[in-house]
Amino acid sequence: MSIQNVEKDFRHYVKKMSHYEEVIGLTAWDLRTGAPKKGVEQRSEVIGTLSTEVFRMSVSKEMETFLDKLEAPEVQNEIDDVTKHTVRECRETFDKNTNVPEEEYEAFVILTAQAESVWEEAKDKQDFEMFKPYLEKIVRFNQKYVEWQGYSGHKYNTLLHEFEPGLTVETLDRVFTELKEALIPLVKRVTESSSQPETNFLYEYFPKEEQRAFSEQVLESMQYDFEAGRLDETVHPFAIGLNANDVRVTTKYDENDFRTAVFGTIHEGGHALYEQNIDAKYKNTPLCTGTSMGIHESQSLFWENFVGRHYAFWEAHYDLLKQFNEGQFKNIGLDDFYCAINVAGPSFIRIEADEMTYSLHIILRYELEKALINGELEVNDLPQAWNDKMEEYFGIRPRHDGEGVLQDVHWAGGMFGYFPSYALGYVYAAQLKDALIKDIGNFETLLQEGRLAPIKEWMTKHVHQFGKSKQPLDILRDATGSSINAQPLLNYLRTKYEEIYRLN
Amino acid sequence: MSIQNVEKDFRHYVKKMSHYEEVIGLTAWDLRTGAPKKGVEQRSEVIGTLSTEVFRMSVSKEMETFLDKLEAPEVQNEIDDVTKHTVRECRETFDKNTNVPEEEYEAFVILTAQAESVWEEAKDKQDFEMFKPYLEKIVRFNQKYVEWQGYSGHKYNTLLHEFEPGLTVETLDRVFTELKEALIPLVKRVTESSSQPETNFLYEYFPKEEQRAFSEQVLESMQYDFEAGRLDETVHPFAIGLNANDVRVTTKYDENDFRTAVFGTIHEGGHALYEQNIDAKYKNTPLCTGTSMGIHESQSLFWENFVGRHYAFWEAHYDLLKQFNEGQFKNIGLDDFYCAINVAGPSFIRIEADEMTYSLHIILRYELEKALINGELEVNDLPQAWNDKMEEYFGIRPRHDGEGVLQDVHWAGGMFGYFPSYALGYVYAAQLKDALIKDIGNFETLLQEGRLAPIKEWMTKHVHQFGKSKQPLDILRDATGSSINAQPLLNYLRTKYEEIYRLN
Repeated sequence: MSIQNVEKDFRHYVKKMSHYEEVIGLTAWDLRTGAPKKGVEQRSEVIGTLSTEVFRMSVSKEMETFLDKLEAPEVQNEIDDVTKHTVRECRETFDKNTNVPEEEYEAFVILTAQAESVWEEAKDKQDFEMFKPYLEKIVRFNQKYVEWQGYSGHKYNTLLHEFEPGLTVETLDRVFTELKEALIPLVKRVTESSSQPETNFLYEYFPKEEQRAFSEQVLESMQYDFEAGRLDETVHPFAIGLNANDVRVTTKYDENDFRTAVFGTIHEGGHALYEQNIDAKYKNTPLCTGTSMGIHESQSLFWENFVGRHYAFWEAHYDLLKQFNEGQFKNIGLDDFYCAINVAGPSFIRIEADEMTYSLHIILRYELEKALINGELEVNDLPQAWNDKMEEYFGIRPRHDGEGVLQDVHWAGGMFGYFPSYALGYVYAAQLKDALIKDIGNFETLLQEGRLAPIKEWMTKHVHQFGKSKQPLDILRDATGSSINAQPLLNYLRTKYEEIYRLN
Repeated sequence: MSIQNVEKDFRHYVKKMSHYEEVIGLTAWDLRTGAPKKGVEQRSEVIGTLSTEVFRMSVSKEMETFLDKLEAPEVQNEIDDVTKHTVRECRETFDKNTNVPEEEYEAFVILTAQAESVWEEAKDKQDFEMFKPYLEKIVRFNQKYVEWQGYSGHKYNTLLHEFEPGLTVETLDRVFTELKEALIPLVKRVTESSSQPETNFLYEYFPKEEQRAFSEQVLESMQYDFEAGRLDETVHPFAIGLNANDVRVTTKYDENDFRTAVFGTIHEGGHALYEQNIDAKYKNTPLCTGTSMGIHESQSLFWENFVGRHYAFWEAHYDLLKQFNEGQFKNIGLDDFYCAINVAGPSFIRIEADEMTYSLHIILRYELEKALINGELEVNDLPQAWNDKMEEYFGIRPRHDGEGVLQDVHWAGGMFGYFPSYALGYVYAAQLKDALIKDIGNFETLLQEGRLAPIKEWMTKHVHQFGKSKQPLDILRDATGSSINAQPLLNYLRTKYEEIYRLN
């Protein structure tokens, strides 16, 4: 068979896999936006059937033959770039999936399913002991996983690689130390400031339908394409790209705190813009999605914070917001509104944290994960270690494990190596923002005028279009001219909070 | 391998197919209830991939081996009933799918896809000539299809069998002739009656949200389980059973005619009750759906007409309806309301037809289909034949083919043999209603009191629970003690319309 025919068959094979992934995505979206409760059990089995099929195809003899043939040095001139990147992606998945003994993997799937439901109860009961034996097994699996996959340098590198290819502990340690050393004193100064924003008005009643209407307008203004997407309500908001022409946003409405929906929608809208603007040539391949968790988060955080929490953005949008709930903002000037939506300070719960403290919550988790994987910390000592760090970084100590070590589902789900992406995304976003300003200059004017299209276009040009064909650090380097660097984020946070809290 | 293991593997294989069918169903539902427009093209390809896979599995060597082994006379005592029925169902599909030459089938799929879009334009332009060459090819395919599948008696029997197993032209001719001979004079008397209901109030503004709220209450009252379903808006309403625990209803709201949503919802709700109440033992098999188009339609029509258009039903529900749009019904007494929602008379368009004339629209199509398949009528002469029959049955003649022969999509989609199910469903429904009254007696009292549960339970016991494990005519016989019979429907229609139109 000619290499052209192998390439064609391979692309067809991969297309089938991506079609299966697409319906898995649709089914997941449906489950989280209104599928009838009694149908959930059967639907989970259906997802299981399809996922098993995708897994089977990813490690099949057929896949191996495709990869072997298409990786041969002598054919590299004859196949196109999209195929090459797809081969790279599929090889990585093939190796990763075949390195793990099948029975170990199956046991792990069952373990995490159980662990998630035990975790939920343990969190409610504030009872770490309940969850401990599960977490111990999960940590052990992750340690074995590192051995199966192999590692270079620190063991944790292998887990990092799953979510942020190219990132290492060495780099992260450097970046996170810089962040920590600057943020801990900043948090302290903000906490002690005598000038605290007035926030009472934030909690006034804002009807859901009006919030929805405003959210839609903000998405439009961000250039989210409603002909290639839709906005729905859910409990834990997410965005999902079924394909580049169907990228759905979900949000949550709290009628006593409009910020949940407004900033949640902008955040998920940032993820959605990424998925909507991937080059069509990557359609039906595994490249048709964001390149990493960190770069994805850079997009959502860029829009949520650098755009959505910017003073100039509200110069364009505050009057619009007022139209949807006049009474609430009648006596609140733009300056007071801006300070209120940027209120910051120490808190126990990561997902409720503000811009300033968010990275510290992540760094804490990163340090604990790394120590667990490396065998330097036992699960048994985790709550104590968590609480000590909370006190060190934030000056507050959880009253119980429900607001401490048990607050996040990630570990119960077996995900180690994921947390750093959240802070990385923030660091990337600040670097991208500085590069964008250098390129197009009038960032603030654009925000003031509510003209967000050029901003979105810059992101599409430098980030979105490549999908998964380009590695995270290559995107960063080509877009910003530099490697990962904490300073842009720190400069931004310092300037912003010194002004809001009148620290000088 | 032991027969128990063959059975187990077969059931697992069939389960996988049913899981694929389930996501195809979900994807179809999504496409019709709000999927973003730009994503439709790719989503259709995804449906194609999954359907191809289901087709492949239905005719695979593996399937054939399962069937051969499980059909062996000596193992019949060792396998369970659900498996036996599943084998029967899969064998029928296997034979049907393998009898058609693959290249002919593929050409037909392309033909009907083109034909549907040409039909849409031809209908708009009222131009039958445009559509004619496509319809000629479609008729020819259906004629060849009959040859491939074989036939006994009339050629049309083979097509009938696809939608209503067990029904023959011989039976249909008898039943439809009885209907026709009684209905044509009834239509004439109704048309000429000097007592016509007052209907102006029907077209007053009724806000969509209020219609939705009333529709939900009616579904609840019908015992539709909202924990195993949901109600959405669409253009062409349908109900779809993804599995027995997730059966979705869709409806359409016309703010200037509440009947569209109210009776449309009750109709689709009738379909949904069927799918929600199939015995759980048929889960993950092809038996977990309605047994035929006709029996399915008997359920929707039973609820829409015998319940929803019954005077006693509105004794219980008219006050509720009024609560949602007070002004509209203020000066309309229950008697006038009842007459208005039962207004009847000749009309051109089938989907807008009333209870009395509906079957005549179907009989007209049945007679033409039969003649086309049998080579007794040429496509070229179809519009003339259509219009002549309209005049004969209804006393009206279409002004153009858009309101005549071009009005329905079915033929463009290649569906011959489908139309009779609509009228059959009606005939079945009337027989079931009489049997139900004989069994539980207090039908009218139940309606008056709004207690619909015993009615639904009777249908579950005699129809729903069996899914596809029981053939349509067996269901009819066991539930009613008789074979198919037009008299119950005719008695009902005569009594009802003689009263409303004061014909005596």
